Amino acid sequence: MPVKILLDCDPGLDDALALLLAHGDPNIDLVAVTTVGGNVGIENTTKNALELREYLGFEKVPVAAGAGRPLVRSIKDASQVHGESGIGTVVLPEAVLAASPDHAVDVIVDTITAFPGAIHLVATGPLTNIALALEKKPSIARLVASFTIMGGSFTRGNATPAAEFNIYADPEAAKIVFDADWQVVMIGLDLTLQAEAHEGVIARFRKLGALAEKLIIPLATHWVNPNDDDWNGQAVHDVCAVAYVTRPDLFASRPARVEVETRGEFTEGMTVVDFNSPTPNAIVPITLDVNGFWAYVETVYARVAANHTV
Amino acid sequence: MPVKILLDCDPGLDDALALLLAHGDPNIDLVAVTTVGGNVGIENTTKNALELREYLGFEKVPVAAGAGRPLVRSIKDASQVHGESGIGTVVLPEAVLAASPDHAVDVIVDTITAFPGAIHLVATGPLTNIALALEKKPSIARLVASFTIMGGSFTRGNATPAAEFNIYADPEAAKIVFDADWQVVMIGLDLTLQAEAHEGVIARFRKLGALAEKLIIPLATHWVNPNDDDWNGQAVHDVCAVAYVTRPDLFASRPARVEVETRGEFTEGMTVVDFNSPTPNAIVPITLDVNGFWAYVETVYARVAANHTV
Amino acid sequence: MPVKILLDCDPGLDDALALLLAHGDPNIDLVAVTTVGGNVGIENTTKNALELREYLGFEKVPVAAGAGRPLVRSIKDASQVHGESGIGTVVLPEAVLAASPDHAVDVIVDTITAFPGAIHLVATGPLTNIALALEKKPSIARLVASFTIMGGSFTRGNATPAAEFNIYADPEAAKIVFDADWQVVMIGLDLTLQAEAHEGVIARFRKLGALAEKLIIPLATHWVNPNDDDWNGQAVHDVCAVAYVTRPDLFASRPARVEVETRGEFTEGMTVVDFNSPTPNAIVPITLDVNGFWAYVETVYARVAANHTV
Amino acid sequence: MPVKILLDCDPGLDDALALLLAHGDPNIDLVAVTTVGGNVGIENTTKNALELREYLGFEKVPVAAGAGRPLVRSIKDASQVHGESGIGTVVLPEAVLAASPDHAVDVIVDTITAFPGAIHLVATGPLTNIALALEKKPSIARLVASFTIMGGSFTRGNATPAAEFNIYADPEAAKIVFDADWQVVMIGLDLTLQAEAHEGVIARFRKLGALAEKLIIPLATHWVNPNDDDWNGQAVHDVCAVAYVTRPDLFASRPARVEVETRGEFTEGMTVVDFNSPTPNAIVPITLDVNGFWAYVETVYARVAANHTV
Repeated sequence: MPVKILLDCDPGLDDALALLLAHGDPNIDLVAVTTVGGNVGIENTTKNALELREYLGFEKVPVAAGAGRPLVRSIKDASQVHGESGIGTVVLPEAVLAASPDHAVDVIVDTITAFPGAIHLVATGPLTNIALALEKKPSIARLVASFTIMGGSFTRGNATPAAEFNIYADPEAAKIVFDADWQVVMIGLDLTLQAEAHEGVIARFRKLGALAEKLIIPLATHWVNPNDDDWNGQAVHDVCAVAYVTRPDLFASRPARVEVETRGEFTEGMTVVDFNSPTPNAIVPITLDVNGFWAYVETVYARVAANHTV
Repeated sequence: MPVKILLDCDPGLDDALALLLAHGDPNIDLVAVTTVGGNVGIENTTKNALELREYLGFEKVPVAAGAGRPLVRSIKDASQVHGESGIGTVVLPEAVLAASPDHAVDVIVDTITAFPGAIHLVATGPLTNIALALEKKPSIARLVASFTIMGGSFTRGNATPAAEFNIYADPEAAKIVFDADWQVVMIGLDLTLQAEAHEGVIARFRKLGALAEKLIIPLATHWVNPNDDDWNGQAVHDVCAVAYVTRPDLFASRPARVEVETRGEFTEGMTVVDFNSPTPNAIVPITLDVNGFWAYVETVYARVAANHTV
Repeated sequence: MPVKILLDCDPGLDDALALLLAHGDPNIDLVAVTTVGGNVGIENTTKNALELREYLGFEKVPVAAGAGRPLVRSIKDASQVHGESGIGTVVLPEAVLAASPDHAVDVIVDTITAFPGAIHLVATGPLTNIALALEKKPSIARLVASFTIMGGSFTRGNATPAAEFNIYADPEAAKIVFDADWQVVMIGLDLTLQAEAHEGVIARFRKLGALAEKLIIPLATHWVNPNDDDWNGQAVHDVCAVAYVTRPDLFASRPARVEVETRGEFTEGMTVVDFNSPTPNAIVPITLDVNGFWAYVETVYARVAANHTV
Repeated sequence: MPVKILLDCDPGLDDALALLLAHGDPNIDLVAVTTVGGNVGIENTTKNALELREYLGFEKVPVAAGAGRPLVRSIKDASQVHGESGIGTVVLPEAVLAASPDHAVDVIVDTITAFPGAIHLVATGPLTNIALALEKKPSIARLVASFTIMGGSFTRGNATPAAEFNIYADPEAAKIVFDADWQVVMIGLDLTLQAEAHEGVIARFRKLGALAEKLIIPLATHWVNPNDDDWNGQAVHDVCAVAYVTRPDLFASRPARVEVETRGEFTEGMTVVDFNSPTPNAIVPITLDVNGFWAYVETVYARVAANHTV
């Protein structure tokens, strides 16, 4: 039986690649996609999700738009990384179908409630929608099958020296989420920076044909970090979060207490990770089986590419 | 034409008295009541609203329950003032009718949207529901006819030396509300402490019969402040907020910039009021026409009492 | 026996007037003057103290320069009030004598230590020197006869809507000072704004001759608050602090717990005053006998003026 | 010509080992030792410094006691690591000579001023004394030959998950120090945890005779980290700071901007290190030549041991 995933995302280069994985893996039943403002504004993340849905052909999956701004703070985006549209240089056909009339928060609450114990909730953007869903119905924390985020880190940041972007973009939402009555799987930067789409990966993608040339490779090679001396390729952060649900065997993890800093002068949005805490609230993957990860991803992408007619 | 009021409240001694005013004033069309956790927990504030609805006979007005806890922080209540039940020693018949199946946040958003430009939104508890409604649909800030809160202060606190309870109970919600694209009428402690239900007021209430003996006077005399040397009676804070909508002539006000402190060590939940700001975001009533206020309130209460059969 | 006062100040219009009082009152033995950066920079506050010393003729009193900047923060001044020089339009002859070779902090520590139980320490600027003296020798808190500051408030600010300038200029120093093992007499804005040098006061000063025309009146009338609708004249804040030492009968006070906010977004440098605290650390004068105050000040100033030959 | 070092320390197991290095290296002229409260209270850190001076025989070097508590915060110590006395199980003969009558802050200021451009200032405890010296005479920042601290980190903490002890113990002092007009060499945990006194090191020490048995080995083996799975021995943090002055060739470093967090809820005392900043204020050693380091330390210790008569 495929696992049911609800993906809350802000596509986003790597969100798009994560969507592709969630759509393409036959072991995943993608039940809904909800969007949030993050890498770019909510109009664009929703537009991208809708266009990807039709381009990839999963029209039966509802796409619902959610929060366009953080709970308390002003909007921050990452368009310097993801491009103005959010998906770099990729241009997809305009979507015909509209987003769901329901708000993302209601879709999250209703879907989890409708399938108690069955929904694997994955969030790859700022955690605003998830926090609002918890505010509306706190019991969803006990009703999910699992909850996995891409966000945070334990040794470094990318939005600031201390903070990773998804947490930095809405620290209060992240605090609500980590304080809720569930165990958060925190796929942080320390992990995702191991998942670099290096030259070998790109070379193998290149054999997948049109889908790779038009979508996968442009998404996976858009950005180059000018400050990283050890740069081997763009990390596909969000893909790791989806992969964790079906392939936890690819990850070595440790339990930890994660607190979200909302008050620091230089540390706002930092996840403070205590691996020695007696009261852990999170599972933190530390090491990725890099070859196994890419083998898995490439297999799924190849499957989609083989069936894709542009 | 009566003005349409949506009252978001946490009854609460003075919330109950405010409900009584909103129900009894023929110039007010009470379109909905939403509840929030505050003075006591959400179960009790909702129970109190439902019982008051039937006791006073406004069953056509929907009552919808909302947020049971602040956005980011742990729950704080004021049961030391309002009693465990929230309405002191008053005991009302159990309600027959249930609350609306809709969440308070949805009722707020949908009601304001249904009557663009017509709803006077009044909030007399922590601002959690209002903040969540703004998160869900930011444009409601431009669609209300007015927005009045009981909360904050400019010279003192009551929950702490610096902070008033409603703001202190959910500072992040208050910050969202004051930062939204509307003008907040802030009925703060400096104003409401002028509305003391002193002996003369109580004496006149006593002539109103059963409703006064069973409801009004117990609500208005339950609490005595042990630290106030100048104590003349319990202040009916929330009543002032409803009164402002129909009788703004009773208030002398100044524009101000109000910022909500969310970070201080000793000032969390304080409203910092700058009367000299070039960019005001609030109207702050400063002085109350005390005699006019009580004359108005007593007239409305007398009208309800005359029609009330217990 | 005159009381021994050590005055730590940042002249400053009203600091200069406070110095004049401390010098002129025969019941005061001014044992040392220490300077701190505040209203203007340390070079100017020291220059002003030195020039005032020679102009007024108290050359035997050492003047020692202290901290030129706050403990942790960047420098803030109040030159928009006090003028670039710090003493408005007053121009005094250049001083012949230099400042003490010792640092103000050492003078404070050594003087208090030399006269245990006898020194009334008065601080009318930011509390940097006092905090550093407490750091160097914590026991001075138990060795002073009393400690009086001009600073803080309980209902309003002047540097910001929440904070008074002297505390705002160095909140960490103020925190150290209020946390020390003594009882702080906090002469705050609420008190000092009662000491306005209104027209009647100025008219009486005018009869004192050259000293008034050249020094007192220019110092007392330099600044006009454009935002104060009830403006009756410049408040002589610092004069109140010196007056409190010899004439506590002019003040009605309450004990309180005073905490200094160092972390707020909008409240940094605010003194949070809890008059109901069971653990007071301060005496807060609330009401000034305004007529008695001015009678006292005018008598002392008249005495100096009578003996002054310019 | 030996380099002049002034060592500000809080012995402390590794401070004692650092003192031993500074005393024993013929290329170092130890001009003064100042003490600060930190690992244990100021009475004990001073007692330990005085006893070490006589036990090792550098009586000509002044030892001056400084600040017994952090600038603004309450005292925190690390006696759970260093033992109640601060030097584990080591018991030295009581010192005959007293500490300098001068305060550590005055010794720091006066020594640096007396040898402009010649003093290498090394601080291995909380930075309270250094901050107070900068407050007293800011120009010392331009007068030192170099300034090296043991403190901070860029990926982890030890006092908390985010903060290293020396910075955590007095964050405001650290902020003052990093904001001053010099370049701080920050020898942080990431570096010092490379300097583990592992079994091989201890085995070689064992050949050095009585000094090793009575002092060096007990100091270097007192503590075992129960939470460190990769534990190979106690790190001699402070020794690295002294070693950096004479043997910078043992360290590979990067420039960085270091900010000290003083406000976070979970990150107080954290050093936030930005290696990509265009305005660096620090040099951060990253990698230690471990073998070279121990060879250097062992050579110096052997030299002292050879001349030591207990």
